[in-house]
Amino acid sequence: MKNKDKSQLLTASRTLEIRFSEVDSMNIAWHGSYAHYLEDARRAFGEKYGIDHATIAANGYQAPLVELNIRYKKPILFGMKPRIDIWYRPTLSARLTYDYEIRDTADGSLLTTAHSVQVFTDLNHKLAWNNPPFFEAWKRRWGIAED
Amino acid sequence: MKNKDKSQLLTASRTLEIRFSEVDSMNIAWHGSYAHYLEDARRAFGEKYGIDHATIAANGYQAPLVELNIRYKKPILFGMKPRIDIWYRPTLSARLTYDYEIRDTADGSLLTTAHSVQVFTDLNHKLAWNNPPFFEAWKRRWGIAED
Amino acid sequence: MKNKDKSQLLTASRTLEIRFSEVDSMNIAWHGSYAHYLEDARRAFGEKYGIDHATIAANGYQAPLVELNIRYKKPILFGMKPRIDIWYRPTLSARLTYDYEIRDTADGSLLTTAHSVQVFTDLNHKLAWNNPPFFEAWKRRWGIAED
Amino acid sequence: MKNKDKSQLLTASRTLEIRFSEVDSMNIAWHGSYAHYLEDARRAFGEKYGIDHATIAANGYQAPLVELNIRYKKPILFGMKPRIDIWYRPTLSARLTYDYEIRDTADGSLLTTAHSVQVFTDLNHKLAWNNPPFFEAWKRRWGIAED
Repeated sequence: MKNKDKSQLLTASRTLEIRFSEVDSMNIAWHGSYAHYLEDARRAFGEKYGIDHATIAANGYQAPLVELNIRYKKPILFGMKPRIDIWYRPTLSARLTYDYEIRDTADGSLLTTAHSVQVFTDLNHKLAWNNPPFFEAWKRRWGIAED
Repeated sequence: MKNKDKSQLLTASRTLEIRFSEVDSMNIAWHGSYAHYLEDARRAFGEKYGIDHATIAANGYQAPLVELNIRYKKPILFGMKPRIDIWYRPTLSARLTYDYEIRDTADGSLLTTAHSVQVFTDLNHKLAWNNPPFFEAWKRRWGIAED
Repeated sequence: MKNKDKSQLLTASRTLEIRFSEVDSMNIAWHGSYAHYLEDARRAFGEKYGIDHATIAANGYQAPLVELNIRYKKPILFGMKPRIDIWYRPTLSARLTYDYEIRDTADGSLLTTAHSVQVFTDLNHKLAWNNPPFFEAWKRRWGIAED
Repeated sequence: MKNKDKSQLLTASRTLEIRFSEVDSMNIAWHGSYAHYLEDARRAFGEKYGIDHATIAANGYQAPLVELNIRYKKPILFGMKPRIDIWYRPTLSARLTYDYEIRDTADGSLLTTAHSVQVFTDLNHKLAWNNPPFFEAWKRRWGIAED
């Protein structure tokens, strides 16, 4: 697989609402709150492309995170309604790999970048080494070729 | 600075308590909860070596995270009381850089590794490009040489 | 003040999104997550009627909760998008008093009722015994008579 | 059942650790964080008297909250290590009813009081109208008479 341009990738986006409870004593979103924002993005993606929690569970799998990287470039202030974009990064292995960007909608500036990797396990937390059949079907449905 | 052996680094450790509210529907600690565990570790470190929130704030600074990397190697189950270890990684720049490991105390197996980077800002979120004087003093106090 | 009918009260409503991280191992929204939902409702109310956090802070006050009562009548399941309604309950004292109802939009059934009371304090957490001037003005603006 | 004196009730207590992430922009513990503190107390009680989550689940039951009342009397500040006490309130019905008090250990002052009620359900969230056998046995074991 070549490192494709983002414009060729499956993508989704949504507006984030920063809760008062997510703001710390510095008056900015607490860094741990971003895990919620990334999950909000994965959910928007999952509902758009049919690979949400419910679908994965209905097929007898779970998709726990095994890797999470976040770069906090500018603080998110309480009251901001930033936009989050998510891109699915195709891989050969049995993984769900996403890139994320959070931007201030007021001036378009980049606030955060992030990257996450999920694997598939059965309901007893046992790792699936190969692509689950439903995931293979999902990739074919969306024309995801890994050359 | 050479990449020092961990045994030469300042370190702290503590036991983690996994809250029921931190466990997700897969019955494992939700990946976003780990931000709490790393913060618990930084706090244990900060209180041991005199570089906690209160000290930083009393010197007119804040130390927001700018980078967070987590590798989830094995799930943390509800009821586990794992141990977290934290190491301070010396750098020349005005940053607080930590490595972390979470281990199952039952069998010593490695559950999680993580890495975080904090910068210093003033109370208006303005970045300190140089080492704050209190941080220079802190490094001297603990004999942290960056060769 | 007589116990007014709800139809005469200032009210707001919004749809709730239940996050995966808010669901516990019973696969229902963890009871502590409801504090977020009530806050979401207060925010919708505050933005509609001009009594949000920012307005209160701009007038030199804070409005911490002093009382919170929640009745969990039916569980909220992951994937539900219930509606929350909030009503402002007029009082003579320097307090913000709200009633809440969460309903399943699928069948209209009542999932939760709640009640909260906030007082006003200055920025040093000192209680305001009398109605702050901005709050008096706010009540006049919305024709809130306490007979 | 007469309203017994607290000194006759089963009780447990523990120290609370206030996390940085639980503190809001007012620099006090966010009111929603208290649900964690009460859960920490129930857990201490449950482990002391053998009625923790694991025991309840092993008997095929869940114990969701149906009622939660909190009175916030004084703010909990970051850095405080307050003590929480929990008392089990005997009832005839199939319920777990607790009272709570949080106190500042520095001066003994009362910060918070709370009250919670849990029911028993099976694993499909179906309410148990009668006392589950394991709960009857638990009450006998601890000599809980409801006169």
